[in-house]
Amino acid sequence: MEAKTVAESRTTMTEVVLPNDTSAYGMILGGKVMHLIDMAGAVAAYRHCRNPVVTVSVDSVRFLNSIRVGQLVLLEAFVTRAFTTSMEVEVHVHSEDPLTGKQIKTSDAFLTFVAIDKDGRPTAIPPLRPETADEKRRYESAMERRTRRLAQKG
Amino acid sequence: MEAKTVAESRTTMTEVVLPNDTSAYGMILGGKVMHLIDMAGAVAAYRHCRNPVVTVSVDSVRFLNSIRVGQLVLLEAFVTRAFTTSMEVEVHVHSEDPLTGKQIKTSDAFLTFVAIDKDGRPTAIPPLRPETADEKRRYESAMERRTRRLAQKG
Amino acid sequence: MEAKTVAESRTTMTEVVLPNDTSAYGMILGGKVMHLIDMAGAVAAYRHCRNPVVTVSVDSVRFLNSIRVGQLVLLEAFVTRAFTTSMEVEVHVHSEDPLTGKQIKTSDAFLTFVAIDKDGRPTAIPPLRPETADEKRRYESAMERRTRRLAQKG
Amino acid sequence: MEAKTVAESRTTMTEVVLPNDTSAYGMILGGKVMHLIDMAGAVAAYRHCRNPVVTVSVDSVRFLNSIRVGQLVLLEAFVTRAFTTSMEVEVHVHSEDPLTGKQIKTSDAFLTFVAIDKDGRPTAIPPLRPETADEKRRYESAMERRTRRLAQKG
Amino acid sequence: MEAKTVAESRTTMTEVVLPNDTSAYGMILGGKVMHLIDMAGAVAAYRHCRNPVVTVSVDSVRFLNSIRVGQLVLLEAFVTRAFTTSMEVEVHVHSEDPLTGKQIKTSDAFLTFVAIDKDGRPTAIPPLRPETADEKRRYESAMERRTRRLAQKG
Amino acid sequence: MEAKTVAESRTTMTEVVLPNDTSAYGMILGGKVMHLIDMAGAVAAYRHCRNPVVTVSVDSVRFLNSIRVGQLVLLEAFVTRAFTTSMEVEVHVHSEDPLTGKQIKTSDAFLTFVAIDKDGRPTAIPPLRPETADEKRRYESAMERRTRRLAQKG
Repeated sequence: MEAKTVAESRTTMTEVVLPNDTSAYGMILGGKVMHLIDMAGAVAAYRHCRNPVVTVSVDSVRFLNSIRVGQLVLLEAFVTRAFTTSMEVEVHVHSEDPLTGKQIKTSDAFLTFVAIDKDGRPTAIPPLRPETADEKRRYESAMERRTRRLAQKG
Repeated sequence: MEAKTVAESRTTMTEVVLPNDTSAYGMILGGKVMHLIDMAGAVAAYRHCRNPVVTVSVDSVRFLNSIRVGQLVLLEAFVTRAFTTSMEVEVHVHSEDPLTGKQIKTSDAFLTFVAIDKDGRPTAIPPLRPETADEKRRYESAMERRTRRLAQKG
Repeated sequence: MEAKTVAESRTTMTEVVLPNDTSAYGMILGGKVMHLIDMAGAVAAYRHCRNPVVTVSVDSVRFLNSIRVGQLVLLEAFVTRAFTTSMEVEVHVHSEDPLTGKQIKTSDAFLTFVAIDKDGRPTAIPPLRPETADEKRRYESAMERRTRRLAQKG
Repeated sequence: MEAKTVAESRTTMTEVVLPNDTSAYGMILGGKVMHLIDMAGAVAAYRHCRNPVVTVSVDSVRFLNSIRVGQLVLLEAFVTRAFTTSMEVEVHVHSEDPLTGKQIKTSDAFLTFVAIDKDGRPTAIPPLRPETADEKRRYESAMERRTRRLAQKG
Repeated sequence: MEAKTVAESRTTMTEVVLPNDTSAYGMILGGKVMHLIDMAGAVAAYRHCRNPVVTVSVDSVRFLNSIRVGQLVLLEAFVTRAFTTSMEVEVHVHSEDPLTGKQIKTSDAFLTFVAIDKDGRPTAIPPLRPETADEKRRYESAMERRTRRLAQKG
Repeated sequence: MEAKTVAESRTTMTEVVLPNDTSAYGMILGGKVMHLIDMAGAVAAYRHCRNPVVTVSVDSVRFLNSIRVGQLVLLEAFVTRAFTTSMEVEVHVHSEDPLTGKQIKTSDAFLTFVAIDKDGRPTAIPPLRPETADEKRRYESAMERRTRRLAQKG
């Protein structure tokens, strides 16, 4: 299979926080942010392999700043490295206050997706070819994170 | 007020078509597309004026190609011209088939938003400063569309 | 095919505006109104041809008055004219304040729907037989709107 | 307070059954029907007293025929009798197959709503003045149902 | 078929009341409570017969206390008695204030579900074997309620 | 503040997987599972401190087995240890096939919640008093996980 670039999987989403996404105190639920992270990550994974994918794991995620009803959630997702049938996706989350335009980083996340065939079994995907220095750095660290995940699984 | 560029309002959204967005035949409802168009357009308008906005009108919209459950809806919105208290926003809609990556244009739309103050009255917004040849062309044709809208209203 | 009357397609909907239908300022989103217009219009079109339909286009729509959370949205839709495989539907939207009963017109819309067969191709539908003077007037003006739409498409 | 007629509270709703309203077997959930019955009933009660209302009780409801995804749910609700601070609302539910137009009765329901003031306490509402023979018959039987309800409560 | 115990069908649900579940005054809609009651009851019925079920009827339900946005809804459902193809399920609803932990009973309900086969026809289910004194009491009274329901149907 | 037991925070949820919770292939979205995990965890945290809480972090989560539309998601959440203003919550997720009753473990998760006062600042919460051997073991390992989290944050 021909290698794909990081740019081919890059996905951006912009979401408006609606009342039902928030607690009774008007702050977005952590689970809603996780839902958006998984959705953005799945689109990036899908775009890399052009095959149905399922989420296998999410690395630990911190919620650094709260997001309020009426604010925007900005998500950016891209594949950092592809393995035989799985790939790691990095997702960045920022909030934007629509009145001031101020953007604040709220979360970073790493998810692992697996491509599946019609019978639900893992299927081979194209490798990733990092191009920029930044992409190469992420590509290297993806292997370290994978090793750590396999160790935790033990 | 200082003029804003088109780039400052530019907004991109990526949405996955879920079962409830579709008819019993698995095709997206036209009203769901309109809902997404309005949402993308409102974010672009908000980013231009950094003030709450309400939708005043939507010009005629055609649905050129159907979008199916599981496909992606890609939206791009930006302000084409600002008037005293209102602004025109252009929205482009494409579908993307996640298995092939093929993108097809499905709709273009022009919406008018008005900025409102705390009492719900129209409030002044910054002018738009078009920069590229393409932005200038859209800026000119926005005035023609506005004249036509005002004539229809008569 | 036997002609149908306007009454056979007439559809009325009553919806309560819920929190998630509104902006952070408690006013209904224009896109939610469009969603309801399309839903009411599709039911009217379906009732005329008793065949699955898809939305082909929406003529320009203005939002004359805002609708708030807790208020009612009243929709009335009916077919104005049927062509070979498509039909024009007119939709009227009013808001009702539940405390005072006051009803205000908020939008009028014209949509075009096409009947489709199992393979997604346009399929023939019954003609419309206008009966009252009002129905005949709408029937005539539907042809003018259609001519204008085809010219814009050019 | 001036008496109101049955016509003043009469409310009709038309809903399309979407995928999320149904079980994994494509049939509408009984709870979704109850949700629609309560919504239609609340609008009728609100229209009678032009005051916020809360549901106090629902009499037994039977689901006579199943409704499938893509079909229509037609609801009609009206006040049958008003007491000092509460009123009985009757709701009729039919399904409509959009391909054949065939309508089938699926449920009848009687609900009791109470009007409440700003502090959540019951507040006086206008009496109902039945006009037709049918309305008078329902008005009489409303008292029998009320007596039975109070006995069950004992 | 081997008899099942009450414990085998017992189902508990905990739900947080979100903005869209409430009226414009922040109180849960009666129809939302009915929706939850039906969902909890259906799971209990499903667990008893391990077969798809449909709701046949709901006995009268009273809403004794209002539940507000941000509060919890606690549901407990279990089968009280199984007949040839149908079973009665009892559902208890309490609210819990998350700040004080105070739980208040808001509703009790009795629903009847029928097990259906692939063609939608009623199919035989296992009998229920009550064990405790309390379960035996409910088992006996289930027959009385059934007799009353059949009489009303007449 | 008086110490609380693990039992006081224990929360169980039962959810039915609806069409909109799943991908186009009928399998639950990982993000939906995360949403439910956060909701169950937040209720457990709320019950421990009887104070509004926000999600601070989620440790890595694996999705061991897929869950399909129509199946049940069973969640159990409880506080493992309380610190000055934060607490760790453990959440177990199982799927249940309603036709066979077979339950399969799909995920375990550890979340950290912080109690906040009216100004959104962290506020003191009661300590947790583990009682059983199992609760004491979890209480000890909670400190190790906390140390690891703080190290990662560095």
